[in-house]
Amino acid sequence: MNLIRSFLFAPANQPDRLKKFLRIAADCFVIDLEDGTPEAEKEAARAALPEIVAYLRQESLKGLLFVRVNEPRSPHLKADLRAAFAADIDGIVVPKIEELDELQPIASALTMAQLGSARELSIIGGIESMRGVINALELARVANLSALYFGAEDYITDIDGRRTVEGHEVLYARSQTVLAAKAAGIQALDQAVVEIRDEQRYRDCGAQGRNLGYGGKICLLPRQVEMANELFSPAASDIERSRRLIAASEAASLEGQGAIEFEGRMVDGPLLKRAQSIVAFADRLAATK
Amino acid sequence: MNLIRSFLFAPANQPDRLKKFLRIAADCFVIDLEDGTPEAEKEAARAALPEIVAYLRQESLKGLLFVRVNEPRSPHLKADLRAAFAADIDGIVVPKIEELDELQPIASALTMAQLGSARELSIIGGIESMRGVINALELARVANLSALYFGAEDYITDIDGRRTVEGHEVLYARSQTVLAAKAAGIQALDQAVVEIRDEQRYRDCGAQGRNLGYGGKICLLPRQVEMANELFSPAASDIERSRRLIAASEAASLEGQGAIEFEGRMVDGPLLKRAQSIVAFADRLAATK
Amino acid sequence: MNLIRSFLFAPANQPDRLKKFLRIAADCFVIDLEDGTPEAEKEAARAALPEIVAYLRQESLKGLLFVRVNEPRSPHLKADLRAAFAADIDGIVVPKIEELDELQPIASALTMAQLGSARELSIIGGIESMRGVINALELARVANLSALYFGAEDYITDIDGRRTVEGHEVLYARSQTVLAAKAAGIQALDQAVVEIRDEQRYRDCGAQGRNLGYGGKICLLPRQVEMANELFSPAASDIERSRRLIAASEAASLEGQGAIEFEGRMVDGPLLKRAQSIVAFADRLAATK
Repeated sequence: MNLIRSFLFAPANQPDRLKKFLRIAADCFVIDLEDGTPEAEKEAARAALPEIVAYLRQESLKGLLFVRVNEPRSPHLKADLRAAFAADIDGIVVPKIEELDELQPIASALTMAQLGSARELSIIGGIESMRGVINALELARVANLSALYFGAEDYITDIDGRRTVEGHEVLYARSQTVLAAKAAGIQALDQAVVEIRDEQRYRDCGAQGRNLGYGGKICLLPRQVEMANELFSPAASDIERSRRLIAASEAASLEGQGAIEFEGRMVDGPLLKRAQSIVAFADRLAATK
Repeated sequence: MNLIRSFLFAPANQPDRLKKFLRIAADCFVIDLEDGTPEAEKEAARAALPEIVAYLRQESLKGLLFVRVNEPRSPHLKADLRAAFAADIDGIVVPKIEELDELQPIASALTMAQLGSARELSIIGGIESMRGVINALELARVANLSALYFGAEDYITDIDGRRTVEGHEVLYARSQTVLAAKAAGIQALDQAVVEIRDEQRYRDCGAQGRNLGYGGKICLLPRQVEMANELFSPAASDIERSRRLIAASEAASLEGQGAIEFEGRMVDGPLLKRAQSIVAFADRLAATK
Repeated sequence: MNLIRSFLFAPANQPDRLKKFLRIAADCFVIDLEDGTPEAEKEAARAALPEIVAYLRQESLKGLLFVRVNEPRSPHLKADLRAAFAADIDGIVVPKIEELDELQPIASALTMAQLGSARELSIIGGIESMRGVINALELARVANLSALYFGAEDYITDIDGRRTVEGHEVLYARSQTVLAAKAAGIQALDQAVVEIRDEQRYRDCGAQGRNLGYGGKICLLPRQVEMANELFSPAASDIERSRRLIAASEAASLEGQGAIEFEGRMVDGPLLKRAQSIVAFADRLAATK
């Protein structure tokens, strides 16, 4: 699956907001049948799915297109899955995944749906509860999963804590989620920032997530998409510095040195690999533009 | 079991301090046969238990009354349990729980003691060692447990680290303990603050604990009880804000909106549930006054 | 095994730097066949091992002497082990340990090598990848392991994150590693600081590690050895304060008090044990001087 830096949600019952996807450069768009759509509107929103998806495809939406269904234990799940798989999507987002037994039937349903789709379907799972965090390592290895996202607001509601700017209250859960995802070889998407007017907070929170190993972030509005795309792409200065580091390291290696000092840092295996990874990612981004 | 915000310890060999329980508004009182009572005094303290408990009951002590026995591997344990269950208590605090095999016989002893008690007996377990943290998830699910507390000082002594104000050195262990307790559906009680003259430190530490999901805190003296009760009750401004958020969210839902902006925050499922939980807790507190 | 406060690496292909070990007061020296030695030089470095080790022994090197082999999945491993065990070393450092199945044969090879060595051989394992962190608890219990070190740079490269001064991005992994090691009864050695000109950063990072329970730290150059030895030895003021605390506590115990106030802190079991541990460590250090 393509890399997701920006992971944008909009409510399934608001076609005007969904149509705006066409003007936004998110890497992955999500039509939300869960929290974004009130109970009373869920059925109508499901019924409207095929049409809005068809419209977005016809207008050549750039980026992946997913539908977020309701959580595995919800009475809405079956109808949500039926509606989602009837539309021309790239996959489903399953929130609040907690137990293997609940997730595996959904993964099987996707395998069936794959037979009727020209796209490679996958599941993005939400780790946003205590059980989800506890079971994250095994949940991440379920077939068909392409990414996990961490839902800090739901998690802290579940454990009955409070959110702070520094985020120490979710550091354990957020660390375990990114570790579970990356160790399973799938993508990791960082928590939402609900303070939607506070750009600095989004940037700071995004930097925390990137440091932890997240490769993208939930977006609640278009402005956050721009910031996420920037935060999760290597800066020009990083790329340039990485190229210099690689060159210096290769030159030293020819002279028999495995470790060198480069701009104040002792550089050997890990820092060299990181520089190579930054350059590779930059090349990959450039190739898809 | 009633909610414990303040969890106050006093030594079992100091009857004058135990009698002062009658003038303190702790949610749970603990008569301490472990660290609070020196080796040479433990036997006499056990012998004096029935009388002091009877006195506290006769004087209508408000709040739960527990006895802390010595740790599962201690030679004192059997005599402690016998003395504790001979008194009219609400349960026992078992410090330094580490292995299921040690905790289960204690839980069985409590089941037996329950036959002779009119009160609903339970165990509050202490996670305060490396083995305890490693096994916290399974320890928390033992029958008869009503709460876990985290003992930062003992934990950091066991791992041979050092305590700081920020507490990053125990963040992993403190996070795992609250997760284990809350996921098992039992209460979580936060670490002691041994700097007994430093009220700001107690408040800051308590706020950290509350953010992580702890619902109460160890108290070493009466002043800490007052602070704990305040820290772990919703503030009037939180309650009022939560009521407004719920009202705004319900109004929006009628208009087909699942997510709304409320005072700068994007509010949907989790923030709404948290507000509902704050209001429910406030109502519950008000009902018990 | 002796306590390791300073854990100094130098490349196996640079005999001049290895000979300088004789003038440095590290607790443990490591001749590095892994990252420190470029691919093209590894074979020659292996061939030169017996001679350089013999020289260091003949010149009465103080401190332990280890060889770092390449990681368990490396094509170099067999030749590295053969060369290492042919030299008069105290053991091997195995980087990037991840799975029991990989580590156990290495532990068996060491058991065989033990038959031909007058020294007590052991393995120091590196937890420096996602799989290593996930499996740290069981890896730490493998026979012949005497220590684990945490490799923050490699870990963050593996998970594709970024390093910061505060280190929150590795707090989970660094906490799990020290917990795994100490709970298994082996030593824990803290991460390298690659900013080799920045002494304050080394000191701050070392203090974080010590708070978490690490007993020593990776060193990349002689100046870091001096700092590590200081950071991981109790300060004179700590020792003196600990002795006073123990005396006060013993006096109080005679008067029937299990908990006392000492310099603003409530002191009972854990703080007393910590003071005793500091004094015991200081006595042990003094005895080996």
